[in-house]
Amino acid sequence: MLIVMEANATAEQVAAVVRRIESVGFRGHPMPGATRTAIGITGNQGPVEAGVFEGLSGIAELVPISKPYKLVSLEVKLEKSVIHVGDAEIGGKELAVIAGPCAVESREQTFAIAEAVARGGARFFRGGAFKPRTSPYAFQGLGEEGLKILADVRDRFGLRIVTEAVDQESLELVERYGDVIQIGARNMQNFSLLKFAGQARKPVLLKRGMSATLEELLMAAEYILSEGNYNVILCERGVRTFAQHTRNTLDLSIVPAIQRLSHLPIIVDPSHGTGKRHKVLPMARASVAVGADGLIVEVHNHPERALSDGPQSLTLELYAQMMQEVAAIRGLVGPSKILHVA
Amino acid sequence: MLIVMEANATAEQVAAVVRRIESVGFRGHPMPGATRTAIGITGNQGPVEAGVFEGLSGIAELVPISKPYKLVSLEVKLEKSVIHVGDAEIGGKELAVIAGPCAVESREQTFAIAEAVARGGARFFRGGAFKPRTSPYAFQGLGEEGLKILADVRDRFGLRIVTEAVDQESLELVERYGDVIQIGARNMQNFSLLKFAGQARKPVLLKRGMSATLEELLMAAEYILSEGNYNVILCERGVRTFAQHTRNTLDLSIVPAIQRLSHLPIIVDPSHGTGKRHKVLPMARASVAVGADGLIVEVHNHPERALSDGPQSLTLELYAQMMQEVAAIRGLVGPSKILHVA
Amino acid sequence: MLIVMEANATAEQVAAVVRRIESVGFRGHPMPGATRTAIGITGNQGPVEAGVFEGLSGIAELVPISKPYKLVSLEVKLEKSVIHVGDAEIGGKELAVIAGPCAVESREQTFAIAEAVARGGARFFRGGAFKPRTSPYAFQGLGEEGLKILADVRDRFGLRIVTEAVDQESLELVERYGDVIQIGARNMQNFSLLKFAGQARKPVLLKRGMSATLEELLMAAEYILSEGNYNVILCERGVRTFAQHTRNTLDLSIVPAIQRLSHLPIIVDPSHGTGKRHKVLPMARASVAVGADGLIVEVHNHPERALSDGPQSLTLELYAQMMQEVAAIRGLVGPSKILHVA
Amino acid sequence: MLIVMEANATAEQVAAVVRRIESVGFRGHPMPGATRTAIGITGNQGPVEAGVFEGLSGIAELVPISKPYKLVSLEVKLEKSVIHVGDAEIGGKELAVIAGPCAVESREQTFAIAEAVARGGARFFRGGAFKPRTSPYAFQGLGEEGLKILADVRDRFGLRIVTEAVDQESLELVERYGDVIQIGARNMQNFSLLKFAGQARKPVLLKRGMSATLEELLMAAEYILSEGNYNVILCERGVRTFAQHTRNTLDLSIVPAIQRLSHLPIIVDPSHGTGKRHKVLPMARASVAVGADGLIVEVHNHPERALSDGPQSLTLELYAQMMQEVAAIRGLVGPSKILHVA
Repeated sequence: MLIVMEANATAEQVAAVVRRIESVGFRGHPMPGATRTAIGITGNQGPVEAGVFEGLSGIAELVPISKPYKLVSLEVKLEKSVIHVGDAEIGGKELAVIAGPCAVESREQTFAIAEAVARGGARFFRGGAFKPRTSPYAFQGLGEEGLKILADVRDRFGLRIVTEAVDQESLELVERYGDVIQIGARNMQNFSLLKFAGQARKPVLLKRGMSATLEELLMAAEYILSEGNYNVILCERGVRTFAQHTRNTLDLSIVPAIQRLSHLPIIVDPSHGTGKRHKVLPMARASVAVGADGLIVEVHNHPERALSDGPQSLTLELYAQMMQEVAAIRGLVGPSKILHVA
Repeated sequence: MLIVMEANATAEQVAAVVRRIESVGFRGHPMPGATRTAIGITGNQGPVEAGVFEGLSGIAELVPISKPYKLVSLEVKLEKSVIHVGDAEIGGKELAVIAGPCAVESREQTFAIAEAVARGGARFFRGGAFKPRTSPYAFQGLGEEGLKILADVRDRFGLRIVTEAVDQESLELVERYGDVIQIGARNMQNFSLLKFAGQARKPVLLKRGMSATLEELLMAAEYILSEGNYNVILCERGVRTFAQHTRNTLDLSIVPAIQRLSHLPIIVDPSHGTGKRHKVLPMARASVAVGADGLIVEVHNHPERALSDGPQSLTLELYAQMMQEVAAIRGLVGPSKILHVA
Repeated sequence: MLIVMEANATAEQVAAVVRRIESVGFRGHPMPGATRTAIGITGNQGPVEAGVFEGLSGIAELVPISKPYKLVSLEVKLEKSVIHVGDAEIGGKELAVIAGPCAVESREQTFAIAEAVARGGARFFRGGAFKPRTSPYAFQGLGEEGLKILADVRDRFGLRIVTEAVDQESLELVERYGDVIQIGARNMQNFSLLKFAGQARKPVLLKRGMSATLEELLMAAEYILSEGNYNVILCERGVRTFAQHTRNTLDLSIVPAIQRLSHLPIIVDPSHGTGKRHKVLPMARASVAVGADGLIVEVHNHPERALSDGPQSLTLELYAQMMQEVAAIRGLVGPSKILHVA
Repeated sequence: MLIVMEANATAEQVAAVVRRIESVGFRGHPMPGATRTAIGITGNQGPVEAGVFEGLSGIAELVPISKPYKLVSLEVKLEKSVIHVGDAEIGGKELAVIAGPCAVESREQTFAIAEAVARGGARFFRGGAFKPRTSPYAFQGLGEEGLKILADVRDRFGLRIVTEAVDQESLELVERYGDVIQIGARNMQNFSLLKFAGQARKPVLLKRGMSATLEELLMAAEYILSEGNYNVILCERGVRTFAQHTRNTLDLSIVPAIQRLSHLPIIVDPSHGTGKRHKVLPMARASVAVGADGLIVEVHNHPERALSDGPQSLTLELYAQMMQEVAAIRGLVGPSKILHVA
């Protein structure tokens, strides 16, 4: 159920509706748009009685929601969400590029890469301090020490920090030191973690699970929004198939599919999506051409010595080349839009 | 690296080796076998110097480990692990059957089903109090109240309780009230949760992720063992494929594949593995015929009214029929064995 | 559209209905059952006017068909089809076992294996004379010379010959020399070949394609039946997934799924379905336990020297063991049935 | 085994080497390059004795082939193959676009679409006269009558005709009336058909099978080249996965993967690759951005009335828009190249 307010409804009228929703035990989520505010309701089982809203002013109409997800849906908000991170943004006019190493390995390595990342024009820096690794015996990240290095990168280069949280404890640290909280593919349906992310005050980058359907991805995002955090960026990073020439199969066609259903921005990770350096540039170009709002790529000053994901990391030279190529394509394609083709 | 002790090595000799391993910063894991004890080492990067063990007695040989996993491997322990849960067991002579509803919905429902489950001959009862649901708006389980109902089921019917934990908090509760801690498919690579499970003093039932490879499943188990909890039961529950006639594609051939690589018991979930009631009985028979150590199945007294997974739940009648059929097949096939066919 | 005849309708009444169907440009397919004959209609676009059948006697009712497939459906024939091949059968009381080498390599090899196959109790012999190989440079089979060897095997050991056809020319040869025409997985949607097989007078063994859905498999069979050849046996042989521990992922749950939709028998190929010798026995047992009508397995007297598929071929000893194990399980499970569980 | 000729080797020297190869029972395939000719050998089992070539002049070196495929490999020919079709080409400077309806339905429909296709700038026209359909009861194409309509389209609009063959008989007709012989995904491993295509004197467009690996695709092409037809164009058209938002999952990253291994051109089919109109334009842009040599797309003047594939057919307006967008991107990306990134 969705409550569409009149175009000239006041903040007080919106607040009154939210209070009424809460008075019957549910939660109201005001979603301001360019011409009107809509209020999503969560917590209800089945439809809400229209009578509940009697006597309130400023309401234009009550609209039933046809999809299993609500707050992420175009039904609730018909304009693209733009996620502001400091002076940078994701989902807006600019192509958002997040670049950096798989893992923060040391201050020297991180600063060397960050310098090149900033020079190349990306506004966001990636780098893991908490690494989910298949093996318990593999390098698990520097933890809080890594986060401090990342915070210093922000101070020094003005880059916004995107870094992964893997549980409640690391999420609190990432929220403190970083700018965007990344939830990795393996945790896309770690619903407990999603709820904590929904209570955080920083935007969340949510990566698609290895075999997640489009609907499962949107429902995972819905977990975050339903807790009150509306700043979610989706990320396609490849799915698991029989194909052996590639680490994962990058499913670029989910980008236009999402843009017909949701207002959330969506970016693409061609590094994990392919696992091979020679594919990263071509697939980065394709990602921008298909209409993605941004890219997240792995860059390393010495890929052959990287503690993780070396074979898929761009060298600094290839990164610089990529930035030029994708800027040119973005110039042609323009910012992403909500799709209305039948 | 693995240290094989002599057949007549004393407990004190084993303890001395473990202390030596700890003295150089690693962790030693004694794995007693029928004829000898082996000691796995974790925490090391690369091989351990043989010189470290100089002067210790009772050591037969030092063996390098050829696989990325160690403690779950047949290289460390060449006999099937039998997990004891009260007077019941998994991985031993008996076929272990875990049956019950998807979710604990109420005391009445739970007791009605438990009565039939016990009568049919299963020794374990399943039922979720913390439900990982795709939608944030779906029934999420009764929480601690559900666990109390399950504890009462144990007292009343003598059934051992298998129930899912989804984060650190619920894991502590499950450890307190239940007998076996279930880690669900969506959390198979929630490494933070796996580490907590590795510190618990109850056995862990680890379900294969929806697109997990055999190696990833074993590595996830290795996370648990590496923290000191050696009582892990693996569970095949179907993987995600293009096939549409089934909810998941049950990959029974992973059972003999595991039995050539690991000493851990493996059971099968034909309910989630197929998602359709008419397939559960045939696939339960097939699971036992292939050599699985047990089954976990969903049973409901009113499947049409179940709050979750109704279409795949057996009626009480079908459950009783299944128990007879699988007992007969188990009688032919015998307990599972480690496989040595080339 | 389906015409159900009265229980006591005469052959002449059935023939009159078929002639009437042909007179309006369609084709009638009488499908005799235990208590009544049904007549399927093909060639029509959309429903057939009931008026067409005015004045004909012996018709009980006209029934619309709800599925995209017709002649393979339980709607047309509610009893299991039993395919008779000489004195042997597939789909009847007996478990049908088809065993032999991947390819006919020489008379000596073929006879040595056939002797063991017959001794072990199988009634059917497999062996390829026309081999579809991924590489143009791999052994492609002995062709007609191989078929002659197979015909001699039939004469000598009384085994029925199942062998693959790959195009019109080889299909004519296989029809002449063999007893059952095999259509391989790669040709499951070679519709031209399916039509030729539909015109052959020998039964057809149709293997599921590597990524075929259940509906596509049934539609491929429908191609054969629609040409007038009703003797089709379906075969599950594994599908392609991300799983790496196995050559293909054997999807045993398609067996009960087929048994709820079609009267055609279905057998399982655990050799191609797994690609590894150590999995063949367990999966053969599982196939029988799930309710399959038979097995097709690769057996070789010298697997290590086989020109193809050596790693998945059973030795003669393992074959003999398999025959005993599956006979015992079949004794418990009984002949396959049409499934009526909701 | 590969024989690399000296840069100034004469045609007679090349012919002498081929004759020598034939004299020992094999087949020689001269592959002329910009600076030298290489001669591939097929028909041999294992390496060819170097002594065979004693006394011949013009040979620079003998090179062993490291891959299971030979003639399609960059080892044999290190320059991109350009396939000439009349005055048009595939694999050269121009982006090759093949557009038209799924099936030739009538002269009027075909001409109306062809007129728009030519006006939009595509040089190739597609349209099926022989349709491989999942159901035997679906429209199977107009056959030779359809091919005659296509030949008239060529005469009238100067478009080159790309149309599918499904067996030997239709292949002979397609070779007579058309310009490029299409082998569909379902026939990618119909090796009998591939051999006939290898003997045809027209180029072959080979579509990737629904679950074919990169190596299987190259081996299928090798079947065609090994018969003497070196004019093969590969086509990515989506693979089958669990993803439900799309008909197939378009695997664009196979384009750069092919370009590191093979000299053959590769194009992309975003229509079958997605199955949904709203995805075709974005994915067409992405295909060109990733470096494909061309596109094959479905266009219909009345998609809502199309006899097949209506939901994925572009309208004439969307087709015109696509042509502009992909031309702009091609202008940036340039013609495809062989990839040398590590």
